[in-house]
Amino acid sequence: MAEGLREIRQPGEYQYTFGPYAEPIARVKRGETVVIHTIDAFGDLLTSEDQSPSSILGPYLNPQTGPIYVEGAEPGDTLAVTIEAIEPTRDWAVSCLVPYFGGLTSTRFTATLQDPLPEKVWLYKQTADGGFAYKDRWEIPWAPFFGTIGTAPHIEAIASLAPGAHGGNMDVPDVTVGNTVYLPVHHPGALFYTGDAHAAQGQGELCGVALEIAARGTFTFDVIKGQAIEWPRIESPDAIMVVGSARPMEDAARIAYSELIRWMESEHGFDRLDAYQLLSQAGGLYVGNMVDTNYSLVAKCPKRYLPRHREGSGQPDTPPEVGV
Amino acid sequence: MAEGLREIRQPGEYQYTFGPYAEPIARVKRGETVVIHTIDAFGDLLTSEDQSPSSILGPYLNPQTGPIYVEGAEPGDTLAVTIEAIEPTRDWAVSCLVPYFGGLTSTRFTATLQDPLPEKVWLYKQTADGGFAYKDRWEIPWAPFFGTIGTAPHIEAIASLAPGAHGGNMDVPDVTVGNTVYLPVHHPGALFYTGDAHAAQGQGELCGVALEIAARGTFTFDVIKGQAIEWPRIESPDAIMVVGSARPMEDAARIAYSELIRWMESEHGFDRLDAYQLLSQAGGLYVGNMVDTNYSLVAKCPKRYLPRHREGSGQPDTPPEVGV
Amino acid sequence: MAEGLREIRQPGEYQYTFGPYAEPIARVKRGETVVIHTIDAFGDLLTSEDQSPSSILGPYLNPQTGPIYVEGAEPGDTLAVTIEAIEPTRDWAVSCLVPYFGGLTSTRFTATLQDPLPEKVWLYKQTADGGFAYKDRWEIPWAPFFGTIGTAPHIEAIASLAPGAHGGNMDVPDVTVGNTVYLPVHHPGALFYTGDAHAAQGQGELCGVALEIAARGTFTFDVIKGQAIEWPRIESPDAIMVVGSARPMEDAARIAYSELIRWMESEHGFDRLDAYQLLSQAGGLYVGNMVDTNYSLVAKCPKRYLPRHREGSGQPDTPPEVGV
Amino acid sequence: MAEGLREIRQPGEYQYTFGPYAEPIARVKRGETVVIHTIDAFGDLLTSEDQSPSSILGPYLNPQTGPIYVEGAEPGDTLAVTIEAIEPTRDWAVSCLVPYFGGLTSTRFTATLQDPLPEKVWLYKQTADGGFAYKDRWEIPWAPFFGTIGTAPHIEAIASLAPGAHGGNMDVPDVTVGNTVYLPVHHPGALFYTGDAHAAQGQGELCGVALEIAARGTFTFDVIKGQAIEWPRIESPDAIMVVGSARPMEDAARIAYSELIRWMESEHGFDRLDAYQLLSQAGGLYVGNMVDTNYSLVAKCPKRYLPRHREGSGQPDTPPEVGV
Repeated sequence: MAEGLREIRQPGEYQYTFGPYAEPIARVKRGETVVIHTIDAFGDLLTSEDQSPSSILGPYLNPQTGPIYVEGAEPGDTLAVTIEAIEPTRDWAVSCLVPYFGGLTSTRFTATLQDPLPEKVWLYKQTADGGFAYKDRWEIPWAPFFGTIGTAPHIEAIASLAPGAHGGNMDVPDVTVGNTVYLPVHHPGALFYTGDAHAAQGQGELCGVALEIAARGTFTFDVIKGQAIEWPRIESPDAIMVVGSARPMEDAARIAYSELIRWMESEHGFDRLDAYQLLSQAGGLYVGNMVDTNYSLVAKCPKRYLPRHREGSGQPDTPPEVGV
Repeated sequence: MAEGLREIRQPGEYQYTFGPYAEPIARVKRGETVVIHTIDAFGDLLTSEDQSPSSILGPYLNPQTGPIYVEGAEPGDTLAVTIEAIEPTRDWAVSCLVPYFGGLTSTRFTATLQDPLPEKVWLYKQTADGGFAYKDRWEIPWAPFFGTIGTAPHIEAIASLAPGAHGGNMDVPDVTVGNTVYLPVHHPGALFYTGDAHAAQGQGELCGVALEIAARGTFTFDVIKGQAIEWPRIESPDAIMVVGSARPMEDAARIAYSELIRWMESEHGFDRLDAYQLLSQAGGLYVGNMVDTNYSLVAKCPKRYLPRHREGSGQPDTPPEVGV
Repeated sequence: MAEGLREIRQPGEYQYTFGPYAEPIARVKRGETVVIHTIDAFGDLLTSEDQSPSSILGPYLNPQTGPIYVEGAEPGDTLAVTIEAIEPTRDWAVSCLVPYFGGLTSTRFTATLQDPLPEKVWLYKQTADGGFAYKDRWEIPWAPFFGTIGTAPHIEAIASLAPGAHGGNMDVPDVTVGNTVYLPVHHPGALFYTGDAHAAQGQGELCGVALEIAARGTFTFDVIKGQAIEWPRIESPDAIMVVGSARPMEDAARIAYSELIRWMESEHGFDRLDAYQLLSQAGGLYVGNMVDTNYSLVAKCPKRYLPRHREGSGQPDTPPEVGV
Repeated sequence: MAEGLREIRQPGEYQYTFGPYAEPIARVKRGETVVIHTIDAFGDLLTSEDQSPSSILGPYLNPQTGPIYVEGAEPGDTLAVTIEAIEPTRDWAVSCLVPYFGGLTSTRFTATLQDPLPEKVWLYKQTADGGFAYKDRWEIPWAPFFGTIGTAPHIEAIASLAPGAHGGNMDVPDVTVGNTVYLPVHHPGALFYTGDAHAAQGQGELCGVALEIAARGTFTFDVIKGQAIEWPRIESPDAIMVVGSARPMEDAARIAYSELIRWMESEHGFDRLDAYQLLSQAGGLYVGNMVDTNYSLVAKCPKRYLPRHREGSGQPDTPPEVGV
């Protein structure tokens, strides 16, 4: 799919914040499709099960490719990024336990006096059918996405480990092929960054580290002029979604669902309380990550419930699927 | 399915707590299949869109049928309840907004000085294909489950609006036909209660009220002797699950995933850290409710990753589905 | 102080829940002053630094003396309990670390895969000046209070380890001599319980265990007819206070301050937004416990800001004290 | 006190982030005492009770004076800032309600569908005795402090409305005259900022807005070479304290107390579990703010319990004071 497309690689140092303080590494036009290369969340430094993650990692994690300047994007617009393809650029993936990081350990923020869990590295090899296998123990199907995607905030430079209203490290599996991610624009050119490709990830990213890969992603950039959004949105063939990122986790859920209701009001003709009611019976709500600086939850409305979509689609009403 | 089975109806007052202080209304044998009748969460009192929920509701909500004594269940055992069928006993469902209750309003606990949202009632009628339609606006497919199911705690009597380690008002759509719910046993006979049937519900039960119905459920009761569990477990044809109920929501997630790891260790031969790793890549985590006294989250492990199951199943590895 | 007063001791089994299901052990009249004896939170079983808490403790903790029937109290009234004196009935106090319990460890609810902290017992001896000394290491001044105090909820039986709207295990140092605690009444006689006396405790009760003592408390009981309250209130010579108990901790703070505003509105003539403003500049907010099933926070308004009190008191305006 | 000292005023635009991306406005020497002028959190724009806060406020709030380069400070050191004096530079203070901001309203993060509270402005005038009076309704004693104080983070630029490990908008009343604030140093010169002076504030800063004033503060700067700290520390004549800033609030408490224990271990000779025990009986824990992007809690250890201090001080052991 990516043949003949322009390939964008980080020319110098990778970025470890989403912010307006770095010079763009590339410019893309509205409607342009490009290939962006990313390295893994450990800067490709974790390559062996004999390594101790804490000893090889530097002060920053999660290197980003960017910022990329999208022509025509101005403050108050929305950036629309469609993911056309994701390909691994190596045949292995890595996951690991990092001390005091993860969903089932105390952390720097949920601080306790307990000893950390042991460090451990799991290396996975790609198999003939595209999945990633840990030894002969288990194989995870190929279900790739970008853990990190976003634009520059107003005046803040936010660590690439943090998700928020700008996107960032959401770790949401729906940032994947065939879907469009909508992001707020606060600066001319939007200043787009991405990275942290995952071959697959469970809901919650439980230990804090997915199947980390280096990858090339094919992205098409567009701009919705004059439409401002507060939080990242995702559109798949079947659903519209909002990602809320906050702590505690219920605040992420409140953000995601309330922003989804605003979307249903402004673009799909719903009365506010009717949207609230409909999502009470048909909405989806899953956990992207329960490990990062903020937790990310995804609220979904199946498109079959959207009036404009429903009329044209002829889709049958099927029961909602609930999780894995 | 329910023909010829014993039918259990609440003989007197419904129960509004899960506790050891009420006399059993019926006794069932190990392996017995019975039909249990339940009324809706409003005691079947909310029947018209002209009603104001706050004016017709009494001091207690969520009437339960029970307690039912399961012969052979002793403290330290696990009760296994398989749901064979759920049928509505009326052709309509109701949802509504109750003041200061729900996911997108301040509440008695998340207290603010703001005015409440307006009260409103939505009545749904069952359609020919079994779904429930709100006027000609939208139709929700039939996807029934029991919002409330559980056993008596040690010494507490817990309100039927609260979910917890005993089960209770979890509002988890996987408490449905074809699945088995495992519950802790703290008293001879386990003292089982159920109620709060829903024709369908979105993840999170956003406004706090699902498609409330009166129903008859067909349940088969069994006892796992000598096995004690800490939190409710669910087994479907495809997955094993644990329900964690707590606040804040991340604690519910931590409970659900850590208890699922214990299950994988004790019954499926996993090393603890390997289970932690596998769920990081393949686990599911969705929100049952974000509105009750405790929030309920469901952590899942697809059975295809369980060694014993995998050998026999011949199931293909398919990508995890993520939410609705 | 307690000479000649009636002394109430638990006649049989101590209570481990606050609920309406136990028979009263004594009746007191409105205005009566009595002495109530309590044993410590470990049932007086933890007496040596050589003991392992987890091995000697039974299934339940925090034995309560009660329920005590207060004549004249009816549902919808408020019980007013003034603490006249607290005396230790032994010359030592005990604190300890219990596995997976406390503020700086993972717990049953904030579940992690980490090992627990070690168990450890600290025995304190009373000194000549009334404080409690740990060896020659440090001495904690005598600052006694009852960790647990409350009335029976509507229909629930709530574990004596949990604080809530009924009071319970709030672990709030202002439940002390010279102060009046106001509690909701849901049953004839109110059904009062108390226990868990502490010789002293830091804010937060950090490790989960204060300086636990057996004690005799002198209490005067009164009833405010026709006034219903939602959450426990405390009045000291200098301040009015509300205790909110919930998770996460910010919900406990929201409850405490919003109920304090309602008190200022209903009894002290404040406009709601003016009360909100005044507390923004002069309110106190400290943590009672950060370790129990719910966290308890105390919101305070100094009485010098209350119009009726201010006129009569002639107290100088002194700066608010902030914590220890 | 400030006579003859160098006075530092912001020469151009005020800063709205704490970060390494702005040029220093001044340089101070180790040991130097200077006066720093700050404007109020609304940029001195809110001057009348007739104004609507939302209409006059720009996109950013909380202007900071800085960054100030402290000579001799290098990454890995600790900056020690002693506050010698705080003087208002006007005779009035302002507080207000801003829509969807504050402790008893839904917010952008704790999102609900409810209407906001009304906007309202309260103007206070300074009285002859130094306090600030709202009409003839109430007077708040002068108890000034800087709501915002901190250093530049590693690579992030953090909004001046947010508190964190770098300090920032902690809204902690102990950042006051006579106390020393210790801050981490991540860049040469530390890059110090301050602002948001308050004439007084209740614990929690309930409505989100204290008694906002323009002020001149007198600060003495020093550097502790070779000592790195993780979170802001405060030392008063009577206590050592740590400020933890996080969500949910219990995480802020865990941070504050666990970092305080580390301080007691590293500098005061405590065994870790003994420090945990001592703080359980004698620690203080109050809420600085319950309204900002992160909540700030302060954990305190009275100095009389620190061995080195105790030997020399001859202070009597007095009971811990608990809140206002």
